[in-house]
Amino acid sequence: MNDIKGMIKELSKFEKGKLYQNDFLLTWDKTLDELKQVLTIAECLKTMREKNISPRAFDSGLAVSIFRDNSTRTRFSFSSAANLLGMAVQELDEKKSQIAHGETVRETANMISFLTDVIGIRDDMFLGAGHTYMKEVAEALQAGFEDGVLPKRTTIVNLQCDVDHPTQSMSDLLHLKNHFGGIENLKGKKIAMTWAYSPSYGKPLSVPQGIIGLMTRLGMEVHLAAPKKYDLIPDVMDIAATNAKESGGSFTFSNDMSDAFKDADIVYPKSWAPYSVMEKRTDLLKKSDDAGLKDLERSCLEQNSFYKDWVCNEDKMKLTKKGKALYMHCLPADISGVSCKDGEVSKEVFEKYRVDTYKEASYKPYVIAAMMFSSQFKDPAKKLTELVERASARSL
Amino acid sequence: MNDIKGMIKELSKFEKGKLYQNDFLLTWDKTLDELKQVLTIAECLKTMREKNISPRAFDSGLAVSIFRDNSTRTRFSFSSAANLLGMAVQELDEKKSQIAHGETVRETANMISFLTDVIGIRDDMFLGAGHTYMKEVAEALQAGFEDGVLPKRTTIVNLQCDVDHPTQSMSDLLHLKNHFGGIENLKGKKIAMTWAYSPSYGKPLSVPQGIIGLMTRLGMEVHLAAPKKYDLIPDVMDIAATNAKESGGSFTFSNDMSDAFKDADIVYPKSWAPYSVMEKRTDLLKKSDDAGLKDLERSCLEQNSFYKDWVCNEDKMKLTKKGKALYMHCLPADISGVSCKDGEVSKEVFEKYRVDTYKEASYKPYVIAAMMFSSQFKDPAKKLTELVERASARSL
Amino acid sequence: MNDIKGMIKELSKFEKGKLYQNDFLLTWDKTLDELKQVLTIAECLKTMREKNISPRAFDSGLAVSIFRDNSTRTRFSFSSAANLLGMAVQELDEKKSQIAHGETVRETANMISFLTDVIGIRDDMFLGAGHTYMKEVAEALQAGFEDGVLPKRTTIVNLQCDVDHPTQSMSDLLHLKNHFGGIENLKGKKIAMTWAYSPSYGKPLSVPQGIIGLMTRLGMEVHLAAPKKYDLIPDVMDIAATNAKESGGSFTFSNDMSDAFKDADIVYPKSWAPYSVMEKRTDLLKKSDDAGLKDLERSCLEQNSFYKDWVCNEDKMKLTKKGKALYMHCLPADISGVSCKDGEVSKEVFEKYRVDTYKEASYKPYVIAAMMFSSQFKDPAKKLTELVERASARSL
Repeated sequence: MNDIKGMIKELSKFEKGKLYQNDFLLTWDKTLDELKQVLTIAECLKTMREKNISPRAFDSGLAVSIFRDNSTRTRFSFSSAANLLGMAVQELDEKKSQIAHGETVRETANMISFLTDVIGIRDDMFLGAGHTYMKEVAEALQAGFEDGVLPKRTTIVNLQCDVDHPTQSMSDLLHLKNHFGGIENLKGKKIAMTWAYSPSYGKPLSVPQGIIGLMTRLGMEVHLAAPKKYDLIPDVMDIAATNAKESGGSFTFSNDMSDAFKDADIVYPKSWAPYSVMEKRTDLLKKSDDAGLKDLERSCLEQNSFYKDWVCNEDKMKLTKKGKALYMHCLPADISGVSCKDGEVSKEVFEKYRVDTYKEASYKPYVIAAMMFSSQFKDPAKKLTELVERASARSL
Repeated sequence: MNDIKGMIKELSKFEKGKLYQNDFLLTWDKTLDELKQVLTIAECLKTMREKNISPRAFDSGLAVSIFRDNSTRTRFSFSSAANLLGMAVQELDEKKSQIAHGETVRETANMISFLTDVIGIRDDMFLGAGHTYMKEVAEALQAGFEDGVLPKRTTIVNLQCDVDHPTQSMSDLLHLKNHFGGIENLKGKKIAMTWAYSPSYGKPLSVPQGIIGLMTRLGMEVHLAAPKKYDLIPDVMDIAATNAKESGGSFTFSNDMSDAFKDADIVYPKSWAPYSVMEKRTDLLKKSDDAGLKDLERSCLEQNSFYKDWVCNEDKMKLTKKGKALYMHCLPADISGVSCKDGEVSKEVFEKYRVDTYKEASYKPYVIAAMMFSSQFKDPAKKLTELVERASARSL
Repeated sequence: MNDIKGMIKELSKFEKGKLYQNDFLLTWDKTLDELKQVLTIAECLKTMREKNISPRAFDSGLAVSIFRDNSTRTRFSFSSAANLLGMAVQELDEKKSQIAHGETVRETANMISFLTDVIGIRDDMFLGAGHTYMKEVAEALQAGFEDGVLPKRTTIVNLQCDVDHPTQSMSDLLHLKNHFGGIENLKGKKIAMTWAYSPSYGKPLSVPQGIIGLMTRLGMEVHLAAPKKYDLIPDVMDIAATNAKESGGSFTFSNDMSDAFKDADIVYPKSWAPYSVMEKRTDLLKKSDDAGLKDLERSCLEQNSFYKDWVCNEDKMKLTKKGKALYMHCLPADISGVSCKDGEVSKEVFEKYRVDTYKEASYKPYVIAAMMFSSQFKDPAKKLTELVERASARSL
């Protein structure tokens, strides 16, 4: 119980900021204090549940999910988070809805929100679309609230867009916090966010973007590495650079995986599609140009295949600090000899860190719950105290 | 709190009737007092939630939904209502079930109801089918209860059938009650329920039928207008005429939209398919005659196109009482220049009343919850009093 | 209330065994005392709910369902059970997930379980696959718990595999217990588990296997009958024989339906596919050999058609004890003249026992809830006592 009280005390020290009645779309929209609050709430909820103290803050309420792409772990994380706080999940399945009947985003946003507390959205397929869509929904919810249509400002949690993947990067950060014994210990640590070969194409940019956009806030040495042409969205690169300057860390980009791995404390090797390919793909998807998409896939896979040596294997790991960098991945990873012939990571390296990656993933439900919690309650520390004092059992 | 007490007091004055352990299939099966009770419960639940007093009357329980047609707002309204009262939604997805294995309606009705309190059904595609199906399910539930198979009489809420759309018309009525300051103020008001042009075909008849079947109960002057051949089900026309006579209102039918709009207090312009087309369509759907359906669609759209002037625009609105009639729509509307080239309503008119239509829609979750509540509790006023006295917070 | 206390007292007498933190995969993995505990808990939960005493032992928590085959009654039974105990259902829809992206069973099992108490799995399509899959998931959950990835040992309930269908056979047993006034009264009773004709093929073997594997535990005379070649899995036949020897009952297999029905107290006529056909079908399904599957279906239906006289009609029923054996079926049954021309059972016989079969089915939600309950709580009798003393109302 002591550490829960300690966490709540820590939480009450931060500048409150603007989390309340607000959306969580991009980590770089938030102050560092706001991000730390979310992490602290996440840890507090996790500890409470583990000690069988129910964090159920809602007696009823809906958490709506909109998945415009397949998902296992984010879907389950969202459900777990909503359920933990007492909300039921209602999915907006766009195929089963009447949205095609000419309903606008504004209208749908209102129609699904009369008794809805939170909406989680995953929309990462189209470059330039996902974040834009979330902002459109957010504006509709704000207007609905101001017009008296909605009883409260329903808030949004970004479950992955074309620009950022904040529930992933914040879970990753919580994993690092625990691994290195505190956020302050991350200062000066080197993280290598690198591209890695995969026999697939069209993987979103939001994970590497989320990582460089967040880890540069903490005084870390963030090294991004990818083959030529495998760029990320330029705006996000700029944000990372600015962040690094402000936090006293650094942000570098190279085309050399080994250089990035050298003396790294943390490595995050992961495939993504080149920015320009994603742009072309977005155009072709919009036009439903199947032949064009096939062509693009073929040429893209061919281009990928020049970089099969961008694999995280034991040799590469030896380059890292004492050969013992922490390997990270958002999962599922493309593992050579397991899920594909040649992939992002060798079987040996992945197996060594497998349990670590599972733990990394285990933070996500709590990070999402914390994002929900901080958007719903003006004074989260006070509400957590109430929950701790209520001391309902989660399970009999 | 005072108005909640006032509502409960009002509620206890009505003749109780037969809402308890009963289905809500058609508004004209209910007495006016029963309908008023449902509206009062709906308002009470809405106010309670807005004041953060939890109306959760169930600690557990299932609300089963059966959607035989796509739906956004009704699906979310049903989920919201069930959740508000403490029930979890379990959808019967007929594609994922073994119903095709030769299971009868009677058997399925029992199999899904062992721990189910309420079943919501939407079945509006086939003329002559939806209401019939609901009655078949109702009989099976009654027999299951009497045979000792089911521990209670699971009840049905009609979420739209071929004949009526009571959750829509009752929400519309609650909107009117609030707009005009009381049900009694609707006496003598003129409502124009008119057909409107839409570049689609096959829209159900249940909304206009629901409106003329309900609004004629309240002493209103109900004007139905549609082009020749765009009839509704004759039986429902008869019911509306009888209702009007009994309530001291009137019911007229013409082929003149402008005449209907003239001096109207309320206008409800909406597209629907001609009764005879729905009959043909039902036959073709049953035969899976795709070519026949295409032909029917083509000829029907061609016929529709003669009536593009059946649009609710600013000129038409000028005909209404002081040019200020309340515009209503069940949404989504076909808006000229927004969701289609020519539609049911001009952009200008819709935009002027957009927030009103959203508010109109916002009553539906509470109307459904009230239908559930009144079917589950013999003395709703007493139960609401218990809930108010319990004073649990909906959200911490 | 007295009988609830009696049940809890009965429950506390049994040897506790290893139900806690364990999976329920096969009835023959459990001791007879363990099975009796599950039945007693099921009855206790049923009585509590009927007396409006809430058995909600969880304030939040997820029950994950994985359905690899269509299902109505098991899906609803699982939802009802989870809901009754306070858990929300989250379905793992493998089509909407990223499992195809090369994720392993081990990884998925962990990713869906961070806040999950129970997983229900139905996987009965492939011979040799379903039970194997469940064991693989179980191992992953055990490892995840031991590695500190999962906060508790999430447990599995087998909702039907290729080998056993324990939620069905245990519901059937509870039905028999109530019909004959006690488990001890089943000793010496004759049950005929027979094949019956159906104009379909590929029906799983798990129901007859479940019945012979369970009923032989209770000193019953279990007669299995099927046409030549319609064998079950040999291992399960062996288990049934061993069980019978140990329990003081008997297990016989013949190719004569009438002989099995002779003097039977209970008859369970049901179609299944021959073991060898299921093996071929499994191979063809794995190869996606559609032509081969069509061929197999044709030849199998042709073979079936020689045995149309394997029908449970009034003549056959006359052979049973006093002509009054209890007819059982897991539903849906293939009823001659109702769901097919010639089927497993005549319309007359089915109609006579229809309500009985519905009651038989009504136990399943409680059996599943009892399997969940006994896997979650070390001392179920103590927890049930707490729930009875808490005396929360299920419905206001």
